[in-house]
Amino acid sequence: MQTLNEHRCFGGTQGFYQHDSAEIGRPMRFGLFLPPVPRALLVCLAGLTCTEETFAIKAGAQRLAAELGLALLTPDTSPRGAGVPGESDSWDFGVGAGFYLDATQAPWAAHWRMESYLMKELLPQMQRDTGLGRVGITGHSMGGHGALTLALRHPGRFGSLSAFAPIAAPRQCPWGHKAFSGYLGDDPAAWAAHDASALMAAQAHAPYPRGVLIDQGLADKFLAEQLHPDVFEAACAAVGQPLTLRRHAGYDHGYFFIASVVDDHLRHHAAQLLG
Amino acid sequence: MQTLNEHRCFGGTQGFYQHDSAEIGRPMRFGLFLPPVPRALLVCLAGLTCTEETFAIKAGAQRLAAELGLALLTPDTSPRGAGVPGESDSWDFGVGAGFYLDATQAPWAAHWRMESYLMKELLPQMQRDTGLGRVGITGHSMGGHGALTLALRHPGRFGSLSAFAPIAAPRQCPWGHKAFSGYLGDDPAAWAAHDASALMAAQAHAPYPRGVLIDQGLADKFLAEQLHPDVFEAACAAVGQPLTLRRHAGYDHGYFFIASVVDDHLRHHAAQLLG
Repeated sequence: MQTLNEHRCFGGTQGFYQHDSAEIGRPMRFGLFLPPVPRALLVCLAGLTCTEETFAIKAGAQRLAAELGLALLTPDTSPRGAGVPGESDSWDFGVGAGFYLDATQAPWAAHWRMESYLMKELLPQMQRDTGLGRVGITGHSMGGHGALTLALRHPGRFGSLSAFAPIAAPRQCPWGHKAFSGYLGDDPAAWAAHDASALMAAQAHAPYPRGVLIDQGLADKFLAEQLHPDVFEAACAAVGQPLTLRRHAGYDHGYFFIASVVDDHLRHHAAQLLG
Repeated sequence: MQTLNEHRCFGGTQGFYQHDSAEIGRPMRFGLFLPPVPRALLVCLAGLTCTEETFAIKAGAQRLAAELGLALLTPDTSPRGAGVPGESDSWDFGVGAGFYLDATQAPWAAHWRMESYLMKELLPQMQRDTGLGRVGITGHSMGGHGALTLALRHPGRFGSLSAFAPIAAPRQCPWGHKAFSGYLGDDPAAWAAHDASALMAAQAHAPYPRGVLIDQGLADKFLAEQLHPDVFEAACAAVGQPLTLRRHAGYDHGYFFIASVVDDHLRHHAAQLLG
């Protein structure tokens, strides 16, 4: 574990670190904000093109996280430097676009193992290092997809769930088609296993009975074509999953929107993890 | 005036704009956060290498600014694209390093006129456009130098003053030597006219009787060689200028520090401008 840099921040420490990942087979970077008195861990997954720094620098989350006792874990969004041919040709596939799943298709399957990296490697290590037992998960856009799918694919692993402008039905949007066909191939069952709306629709009962929070800007240029929160909303309704889906007039897809609502997400997680 | 992009943010609008500056002789960019109910304008000057985006993206100031009614004006840090030979050779001189003064020396004097640009052009236009009469000024590092010197060189223009880790005695540090010799030549009087500590020491009485706020991290790697807040502190004491200079153990020079204390600065300005 290598410390890249650490900064005192709101009485805690915002650090950026690098470690060798066995699952990825590459060095991976992540950010960790440790509040003065850590009480729970919140995983914050970033979107396409982002890095471990994006949420930590732009979301403005540390102020209230310090007050609430939430440690913030910000992983990177894909392997880097693996040397897979074409890995940097697209901004929405390959580097910076891991989609928080384990690829099954060549040439991606060797390194693009973000789900196993997060669930079997980074998160357990962070819990050991911090001693924090309670974990929530959130994310933005592709990271919102990651938060919703990981929380549904790993029952009992997360105590709270929220998302900012998530890719909520990736089987029905161009980003999802590109990622799923490239990483998962043509198997419809594999696609459904990583589609938040399909996963929710398949639940026997509400997996997060205390509620899920999603915020979505209505001036988000990706809303109509890529995000489809209404599909996830319908799936929640069908299985009785309480969902607070807030639609915000005038707000777009970026971090000025996230910053505007992030405090509500931190309070949502603190209430469910610690309340 | 060209709108580069605008984002809904905390019920207000964070925008980035470009206009042709007569003083600079080049297009200039700036950021403006307009809160839901604007009551006063706070000029936020950024440091070396920064742009009009830096403070707007990293400081986390919009949340409380929206609540207090403070519009935030974030100018760029120098002319860009002027084509002066060597303008981008150094990170601490030329592009991104305007030092908020009017250069008198060739080849910089033609375009490097940041003081006239801010005081005669951008600020008056922003006050006309927003209708805001009350103006405060703050800044970080080189921008802290800019805030202190502009506030002292233009008596009565600003109603409140603060700084984050300012270059507080540029005549006594390498950054100041390089900038002042390059932009102002060898005249000691010209250097003194742009040195916050010299300007304060020359005051007949306290120019900001309600007090100046400065925050400084003690783990700031530039503190010992470049910043010298103690020199400014002594100058304030000598002329009876109330100064709150807070020294923070463990904090460095970056925006994780600024974000940690920015709310106190916003409250400082709101109290003096609106209280």
